[in-house]
Amino acid sequence: MLRWIVAVCALMLALPVQAEDGYDLWQRYRPVEAGYAIPATSIVSEGTTPPLIAAAQELERGLSGLSGKVIEVGTLRDNAVIIGTPSSSAAIALLNPDLTKAGEEGFIIRTTRLNDRPVTIIAANRDIGVLYGVFEYLKLIQTRQPLTSLNITDAPKVKLRVLNHWDNLDGSVERGYAGTTIWDWWKLPDVRHPRYTDYARANASVGINGTVLNNVNSNAVSLSPAYIAKTAALADTFRPYGIKVYLSARFSAPIEEGGLKTADPLDPQVRAWWKAKADEIYAAIPDFGGFLVKANSEGQPGPQDYKRSHADGANMLAEALKPHGGIVMWRAFVYSHEKPDDRHKQAYDEFKALDGQFADNVLVQVKNGAIDFQPREPFHPMFGAMPKTPLMMEFQITKEYLGFSTHLAYLGQYYEEALKADTFAGGKAGNTVAKVVEGAVDNHTLTGIAGVANIGMDRNWSGSDFDQANWYAFGRLAWNPQASSRAIADDWARMTFSNDPAFVAPVVDMMMTSRETVADYMTPLGLHHLMDTGHHYGPGPWVDNLERADWNPVYYHKADINGIGFDRMKTGSNAIAQYTPKAAKLWAEPKTMDERYLLWFHHVPWDYKVKSGRTLWDEVVVTYSKGASDVTTMRNRWASLKPYVDADRFEAVATNLMIQEREARWWRDASVAYFQSISKRPLPAGYSAPEKTLEYYRSLKFPYAPGN
Amino acid sequence: MLRWIVAVCALMLALPVQAEDGYDLWQRYRPVEAGYAIPATSIVSEGTTPPLIAAAQELERGLSGLSGKVIEVGTLRDNAVIIGTPSSSAAIALLNPDLTKAGEEGFIIRTTRLNDRPVTIIAANRDIGVLYGVFEYLKLIQTRQPLTSLNITDAPKVKLRVLNHWDNLDGSVERGYAGTTIWDWWKLPDVRHPRYTDYARANASVGINGTVLNNVNSNAVSLSPAYIAKTAALADTFRPYGIKVYLSARFSAPIEEGGLKTADPLDPQVRAWWKAKADEIYAAIPDFGGFLVKANSEGQPGPQDYKRSHADGANMLAEALKPHGGIVMWRAFVYSHEKPDDRHKQAYDEFKALDGQFADNVLVQVKNGAIDFQPREPFHPMFGAMPKTPLMMEFQITKEYLGFSTHLAYLGQYYEEALKADTFAGGKAGNTVAKVVEGAVDNHTLTGIAGVANIGMDRNWSGSDFDQANWYAFGRLAWNPQASSRAIADDWARMTFSNDPAFVAPVVDMMMTSRETVADYMTPLGLHHLMDTGHHYGPGPWVDNLERADWNPVYYHKADINGIGFDRMKTGSNAIAQYTPKAAKLWAEPKTMDERYLLWFHHVPWDYKVKSGRTLWDEVVVTYSKGASDVTTMRNRWASLKPYVDADRFEAVATNLMIQEREARWWRDASVAYFQSISKRPLPAGYSAPEKTLEYYRSLKFPYAPGN
Repeated sequence: MLRWIVAVCALMLALPVQAEDGYDLWQRYRPVEAGYAIPATSIVSEGTTPPLIAAAQELERGLSGLSGKVIEVGTLRDNAVIIGTPSSSAAIALLNPDLTKAGEEGFIIRTTRLNDRPVTIIAANRDIGVLYGVFEYLKLIQTRQPLTSLNITDAPKVKLRVLNHWDNLDGSVERGYAGTTIWDWWKLPDVRHPRYTDYARANASVGINGTVLNNVNSNAVSLSPAYIAKTAALADTFRPYGIKVYLSARFSAPIEEGGLKTADPLDPQVRAWWKAKADEIYAAIPDFGGFLVKANSEGQPGPQDYKRSHADGANMLAEALKPHGGIVMWRAFVYSHEKPDDRHKQAYDEFKALDGQFADNVLVQVKNGAIDFQPREPFHPMFGAMPKTPLMMEFQITKEYLGFSTHLAYLGQYYEEALKADTFAGGKAGNTVAKVVEGAVDNHTLTGIAGVANIGMDRNWSGSDFDQANWYAFGRLAWNPQASSRAIADDWARMTFSNDPAFVAPVVDMMMTSRETVADYMTPLGLHHLMDTGHHYGPGPWVDNLERADWNPVYYHKADINGIGFDRMKTGSNAIAQYTPKAAKLWAEPKTMDERYLLWFHHVPWDYKVKSGRTLWDEVVVTYSKGASDVTTMRNRWASLKPYVDADRFEAVATNLMIQEREARWWRDASVAYFQSISKRPLPAGYSAPEKTLEYYRSLKFPYAPGN
Repeated sequence: MLRWIVAVCALMLALPVQAEDGYDLWQRYRPVEAGYAIPATSIVSEGTTPPLIAAAQELERGLSGLSGKVIEVGTLRDNAVIIGTPSSSAAIALLNPDLTKAGEEGFIIRTTRLNDRPVTIIAANRDIGVLYGVFEYLKLIQTRQPLTSLNITDAPKVKLRVLNHWDNLDGSVERGYAGTTIWDWWKLPDVRHPRYTDYARANASVGINGTVLNNVNSNAVSLSPAYIAKTAALADTFRPYGIKVYLSARFSAPIEEGGLKTADPLDPQVRAWWKAKADEIYAAIPDFGGFLVKANSEGQPGPQDYKRSHADGANMLAEALKPHGGIVMWRAFVYSHEKPDDRHKQAYDEFKALDGQFADNVLVQVKNGAIDFQPREPFHPMFGAMPKTPLMMEFQITKEYLGFSTHLAYLGQYYEEALKADTFAGGKAGNTVAKVVEGAVDNHTLTGIAGVANIGMDRNWSGSDFDQANWYAFGRLAWNPQASSRAIADDWARMTFSNDPAFVAPVVDMMMTSRETVADYMTPLGLHHLMDTGHHYGPGPWVDNLERADWNPVYYHKADINGIGFDRMKTGSNAIAQYTPKAAKLWAEPKTMDERYLLWFHHVPWDYKVKSGRTLWDEVVVTYSKGASDVTTMRNRWASLKPYVDADRFEAVATNLMIQEREARWWRDASVAYFQSISKRPLPAGYSAPEKTLEYYRSLKFPYAPGN
């Protein structure tokens, strides 16, 4: 046996048995370098519930991996780590720590003494808090924090922290760039891949406590008995990690699944069908979370098909779920086929009037901006405008409009920007989007943040190593919407790659500017929705032939020989009026405003002088060019970090940056070529002409672009 | 550093850092148990070509893994392993071994002495032979063979050993049950996943030397410049492993890609387009293998659309490829929409007359049987009937008709049965299908075997652990069509799971009977094509409503109140006449024939007495029931092997067997219920009635069945 052990050791050291392929995400638990000491000697856990067992297992796995010695659940020793709740652990009960601030899901981590022994306790009021505490404690080690005198109390500021999977039953993922769905629907409920547990571990490690399994453009088959059984199997796997499952509900399911003639929310048969369906689901999944609904939006069925309101539709489902404790997340991303009005205004116009009409187990889910997850958008005017309704934030983690999974864009910085925006609700400064979402502004206890997942079958889960950071940052900001995205990037980089300061500092800087760079080479100065049709891959500012005016990029940039930009002032669509006066003031005056929003709100002459002193035309070209050259800078920076990164992941990131550099240049050249054909102006001195003709860029086709 | 090493060792032993997930296939290279000695001390390789570097790396990886010590490429020591060709290795040249029998791709492995040192040499005439020899040598260790006095010479008996991927450009895989395609077309040619190299290693380890990347139901976009560049990137990755890439060519590509008005093979413009396309491909891929073509079959375009023959079509493509050394694999799986004749006869009828008309770089690719990869088929009558044409065997590795990836069916035993079948070509006994395919019967040097791949993005590659054995066995039998499928199963089980005799013996027995078991519960006694429509999942013997008669199961079983079976004798379709008289004789007489083919060739009364003494009706029920209960036996056997298998793979296989047991019972019950509704006969004593009604079985629908 010993010979064998030695053999295995030699082997393990000899070979990259487990090359870094990104599967372990930020939970790699590799041994810490000499010089950083982990005092922990043993784990004391008396808990027997699934979450407490999961917590003990994770701590054992993490401490053993990080310390490089087997640290098991066992007896009390000096520097033992004691985990549990007062009810599950005699030791915790004895120490009787103050858990009032921990609440339902929070925890405390404290170094203290038990019968004169130094110990570390991870305690909570409920089991799930213990698991969250364990992940926090492991993060302290993964990021090399001192462990000698800990006194941490933490609890989530938002109740529902939910991933939205836009996954279809045929395995494809709408706007997915990381391969197909990880849900093996065909083999469920029998086959439960280990990947499902790793998915739950990763989510729990950042506090995500819910997942919507299927696309908001949904299929009634998801509500069939066979698929409820499949969903129940996933729910069983996720339950120990505090993750509830939700389903996107197709509003017309009573017709397609139920065989009824109508889906009218006020029809008694329809209401009865939904009640029965809810009962059926809860019989299989007692802690089922509820429904997410996309209704009367982009062709989806909804209550308006029957001349009923969004509130009528949402409340019918809420009534069916209410007895079981379920909730409805009703999306506000609507823009009517009939209305020719600025899409920016339509959600607000439709929903504002319904404030106060929604049942108390309904949240209205609002995208961060009023158009559609553009590289930059001003915050959505609904935030702060519906005090009687809990508004749930919807962020997009998958990069539909930011270069798919090959462009590096750290979205934590984007999310923070959106959350920090001041709505001036009630005319008061400081009522940020974050505080609205937390319920602090209008005293809501039912609160939530959703993120459209970037997860697929790719081995690295997210399609690229750096896209993992967006999943991670979403979870961290859902837990605490006022957290710093830079601090989050720092944690992520340390856990995912290396704690070497020579690596961490430049990588975090690169991450923090990366999304700005994408906005520069795709949609500078407040331009938006310029991506090519359907797949949204690459530039398509010239597209003007789509059925609906507001599907065309030309609708959004409105460029002509004189100028460019969407006038959303009084003189134009007046979308600005949907913001509180103090918020509106920020964007009212081109001379003083943040020019990164200039063309979002104003139509401006080409020869208008921007703050840099350049003409607008020159500034557009300069900004596009800067975006492209900043990618070259990122690429060079990454090349210099080779000593700190394992070969496979270094290569993978380097290849993506090579692609991004080429495509940023493409964006810059195609956009400059197109806008120059309209402005008829010369390029500023020192700025090179596009490599190819406008006709060339217009001719490009991508028949099998992913996610479309 | 030492502290760190010890730490890592402790860690590696403490944790299942790398749980067995099947990704390593039969190339796990885990340390051998004490008691088995590996003499090798170092590797001597002077080769600098990609295949020789790959060979040295594989040997280093394998020997280090298996011995548990680092064994590197270095200097000559006692018991060194010397690899190379006489031209690449001075040592090999000095020892000057007899390589005449090794041929172009073969190798020798020999223990000998060099300057009085004991050494092992792995030598070949060409680089690729050295790589094949390295894999053979590693297999000896993986299967615990003695290494002390080796004197092995081996060479492939077939020239083209090719996988056919039925992979579509949208990522789906036709008849694929292991997830989506492993070709990340979107990110090619830039991103080259490590998985591509592991794919090449696995194929080379069993001698596969070609791969057709795209579906035979093909898309002309595969021939576009962008996709040729993507294909070239894969070719570059596979080249060091001796694997050529091929493409399925859409016959109408000159219209779709070339913008021509016709694809008539005799049209000069069409011929010129294909010549130019071939030149374009070879400019990017100098060793491109050639085209696989499905023409005038199941709606695919072909030469008959222009009143030309299959030979006209194949020869046009052959002419374009010829200057570059490429070949055409022209599929014989054709059955005309017009002809109402027995499908069994149509390929033979269409192709027999063309024998001698094909260019010398064309092979005709023939499925093992005349219908379509059924659980059992008599060999295809074309084998032995076209002496002037090289016939390439097409096996299906993916289990379209044998339970997808959840049913355990070892196809090595199926392939061996087909290859061992005696065609009695020229009236002589011993001219087996294997010998026809090897070219031995008609002296062809251009020979080939194709297998429709069962590979996808599932972590274990093939959708289940045991399906890996079918990929493995295909390769081994393509290398040597006269090999023993039992010996192959034995090697595979040892390399994939364990060398413990207590594990190997029962598992190999289980594998060898597993396909017979599937035939019993799906299509006993020569019944065929009874699977449900489209997806081919589960029983559909009642289906009678499809557009074409020969798409309906009822067309194949022809059951009525009096009897069942397809009369292919003179009195019926007379398909039997397509076989040589001596072969036909085997099946001519129900009384004496192998009854596993009875209903394939004969329509037999229900009360006909079979060899067992039972009536045919009783035998049908008994065989269906036996198939179902044999799965229970398999399941119990696997359960008893738990001590020998790692937890994850044991669980995965156990879950699949649970599914198979349920579905075998479903097959048995649904089939018995249906046939009883026709025979109107009672079940034999002691055989239970179906669990549910026939209506229930007929009502089952599977909207998202994979591979459809």
